[in-house]
Amino acid sequence: MRSIAVYAGSFDPPTNGHIDVVLRMQPLFEKIYLVVAENSRKNTLFTSEERVELLINALAEKLPLGSFEVRTYSGLIVDFCKEIGANILIRGIRAVSDFENEFQMATMNRKLNPDIETLHVMTDERYFFLSSSLVKELARHERALLDLVPQNVLEALQKKARYA
Amino acid sequence: MRSIAVYAGSFDPPTNGHIDVVLRMQPLFEKIYLVVAENSRKNTLFTSEERVELLINALAEKLPLGSFEVRTYSGLIVDFCKEIGANILIRGIRAVSDFENEFQMATMNRKLNPDIETLHVMTDERYFFLSSSLVKELARHERALLDLVPQNVLEALQKKARYA
Amino acid sequence: MRSIAVYAGSFDPPTNGHIDVVLRMQPLFEKIYLVVAENSRKNTLFTSEERVELLINALAEKLPLGSFEVRTYSGLIVDFCKEIGANILIRGIRAVSDFENEFQMATMNRKLNPDIETLHVMTDERYFFLSSSLVKELARHERALLDLVPQNVLEALQKKARYA
Amino acid sequence: MRSIAVYAGSFDPPTNGHIDVVLRMQPLFEKIYLVVAENSRKNTLFTSEERVELLINALAEKLPLGSFEVRTYSGLIVDFCKEIGANILIRGIRAVSDFENEFQMATMNRKLNPDIETLHVMTDERYFFLSSSLVKELARHERALLDLVPQNVLEALQKKARYA
Amino acid sequence: MRSIAVYAGSFDPPTNGHIDVVLRMQPLFEKIYLVVAENSRKNTLFTSEERVELLINALAEKLPLGSFEVRTYSGLIVDFCKEIGANILIRGIRAVSDFENEFQMATMNRKLNPDIETLHVMTDERYFFLSSSLVKELARHERALLDLVPQNVLEALQKKARYA
Amino acid sequence: MRSIAVYAGSFDPPTNGHIDVVLRMQPLFEKIYLVVAENSRKNTLFTSEERVELLINALAEKLPLGSFEVRTYSGLIVDFCKEIGANILIRGIRAVSDFENEFQMATMNRKLNPDIETLHVMTDERYFFLSSSLVKELARHERALLDLVPQNVLEALQKKARYA
Repeated sequence: MRSIAVYAGSFDPPTNGHIDVVLRMQPLFEKIYLVVAENSRKNTLFTSEERVELLINALAEKLPLGSFEVRTYSGLIVDFCKEIGANILIRGIRAVSDFENEFQMATMNRKLNPDIETLHVMTDERYFFLSSSLVKELARHERALLDLVPQNVLEALQKKARYA
Repeated sequence: MRSIAVYAGSFDPPTNGHIDVVLRMQPLFEKIYLVVAENSRKNTLFTSEERVELLINALAEKLPLGSFEVRTYSGLIVDFCKEIGANILIRGIRAVSDFENEFQMATMNRKLNPDIETLHVMTDERYFFLSSSLVKELARHERALLDLVPQNVLEALQKKARYA
Repeated sequence: MRSIAVYAGSFDPPTNGHIDVVLRMQPLFEKIYLVVAENSRKNTLFTSEERVELLINALAEKLPLGSFEVRTYSGLIVDFCKEIGANILIRGIRAVSDFENEFQMATMNRKLNPDIETLHVMTDERYFFLSSSLVKELARHERALLDLVPQNVLEALQKKARYA
Repeated sequence: MRSIAVYAGSFDPPTNGHIDVVLRMQPLFEKIYLVVAENSRKNTLFTSEERVELLINALAEKLPLGSFEVRTYSGLIVDFCKEIGANILIRGIRAVSDFENEFQMATMNRKLNPDIETLHVMTDERYFFLSSSLVKELARHERALLDLVPQNVLEALQKKARYA
Repeated sequence: MRSIAVYAGSFDPPTNGHIDVVLRMQPLFEKIYLVVAENSRKNTLFTSEERVELLINALAEKLPLGSFEVRTYSGLIVDFCKEIGANILIRGIRAVSDFENEFQMATMNRKLNPDIETLHVMTDERYFFLSSSLVKELARHERALLDLVPQNVLEALQKKARYA
Repeated sequence: MRSIAVYAGSFDPPTNGHIDVVLRMQPLFEKIYLVVAENSRKNTLFTSEERVELLINALAEKLPLGSFEVRTYSGLIVDFCKEIGANILIRGIRAVSDFENEFQMATMNRKLNPDIETLHVMTDERYFFLSSSLVKELARHERALLDLVPQNVLEALQKKARYA
């Protein structure tokens, strides 16, 4: 039975929407890799190292040891899948505009490597409105983010704000 | 590792789009149940028994023995999942209008049973335009359906047409 | 200040999604009319009289006396608005497919009577998946509807089921 | 230069939206065929003969003699195109939900006959909200239809209403 | 009766689509606040002071004195609403892609302050295609903008072009 | 019979999706003009001269001499159409998000010049996922682009990569 899954994204920062997807998906697979996309052309609030640490700390107490791993990657995600022997890409979908983009990405990825399937999971309706950009927007206005991000992300955002 | 999946639908009749989803998804799970929905309020071209047989014959030579099973069910699909110990519902998505309906169904099913996750897989772009209704429409006009349905479904449609 | 609003629908039966829209909108207007659409060409589970009663009972304890009124109507909704002196049509929107239909209805209604404006309000995300058809579907399978409909609607659905 | 076009639909009845598409498209092609779809499983308000006559009368004074022809057809539209030597199917699009259906039809029609191209033209924004069903709905409520249908269709609707 | 409404946007520059929304909405509420969003990270053609002036001049002759007020604001819009005692946010919607973004914003704003409701109004179909970016694009090519923007905005755009 | 068509875009670089649209559309019209949009505010990988050359070389062997012409243009596309006497704008559509943008552009262009019609053609389903940005993304990762771009575009991309 092959069942290694990859869940990739910018995670800048991780939100409760991301964490919810990981917690729901992890039990379905042997192992889940969280991949922080490194994209030199995009400005991020947190460095990729910071984002890896934020994900690990947000998940460490909620998932069994060894059931997940966090990595960075700058290449094509299908190549990462092949390297680590994963055959499943997990994507969270929130909205119709997500859907179209996802359709094109999933089709492209199957062209690049037909052995890897993309599975889409609908965001919990509590997180339908939630995005990393929104979280950063609220942080800029120093608004409470209590139900939107994990505790450690909240602290990291406050720290960033303090030294901004 | 829990990994029993259910793929439910009307399958009236099964198309190559359905078969493609089964063939791609089966290797990812221990076993895949195909569930033919029995809905007394819907008129179908094929009886549920016929649809079960069409699915079995279309898949028998393509999948390992014991890797799939075909059933009928008339209740809520989450109850079927519970009965057989499945924790994953598979859904094929073709289009934005599918997406919305799927979003609502997935959310509802999580309300009814939070232990069952719905995973969505994008239809291969070759089958983007394909639906059971289209297949029936073309069969009515006696058009070739060669790339649209499995050989046994083609024969069943021709037989129906002959005695119509 | 003109501020009489109309909220029309089939309400077959009313769901918590409908009730939520009424409770949120009522304080914004002097009075809100709930209009149960009578459409002889549509099969409904509840008669229009039953639906009026279900709405009244579901709202009576939650809204101030005189702040709302429930009616039936079989004509064009803009004509009802004119009759009672309302200048606002309220519509709940849940999804993109709703949106398009709403766009066309709002445009048509402005053609028919430019003095009446349609205002759209987004369904609470808790009720995003909820519809009257879904409620009926679940009732048919005798599933708990606890968070989906008001208590009196729940009882009415159970009574219907018992004598079906 | 091949340039015979086909514009097919139910036209039950023709609206100003349909007429606008014909008037805009006709000059681009040598000849335009309007095809009234005969579908025995659909209930129509007007017979296919009546719909043909409504289209001819609505267009006769607005288009040069011989620049258009109105026909009925009950088969697949690509077969009609082949019969009369047309290589273009014209479709009006009003909305996103139209779009998806159109995408699937255009793809299917290219499978059935790759020599026929489907060209889509956006409905004038004045007719964005307009559909044959809406026209019938308004006619049932005896509302003015002045800007929505041609004069002869208006009279035909009033006649139908009188003897209903 | 609470009925102070806020209509916020970039208004860079105001178009006839914006003006149409204000003119239609103002009579429904006691007072309507137009809020010019100040966003230091966005490049605008007009300064926020210019945009305030453009709005005031475009509306002054069309609305009763005291029925509207124009302001700038750089914080979260729900905070502005609270400051001035408004309980309604008005949003114009033109298209499906608008809709999704609006859904997420409306949901977020209710999280931030459940006392403020967002009401959406469909753009008049004459302005469906119209946006501030389009207006600026046309101005760059020195095209007539006669039906697209108020007279004072037209003059301001021409002045900008002259000194560009 | 008027039948000069214009197909405009960034073509940075041209993909097999673009070429497919040209090959399908050219036979329907007397002549087809491909217009490379010059937009000084957009960063492109290829200069407009390079893009013109890429298009000419990709099409030269596939289309009859004189059946197409490639140009650059920096103004409004409707003005280009008028200059060369074209009355048809061709647009490829891939997705719902394309659709909305296209609807607004087509409506605007009819305002600017009602003599020019926009005709939309659905991208072949093989190219549904394909875009110039995707091609550039894959080129950056040095992935095979064999079925995605014409041979001469492939070589031009490799050359760019080599000197990057």
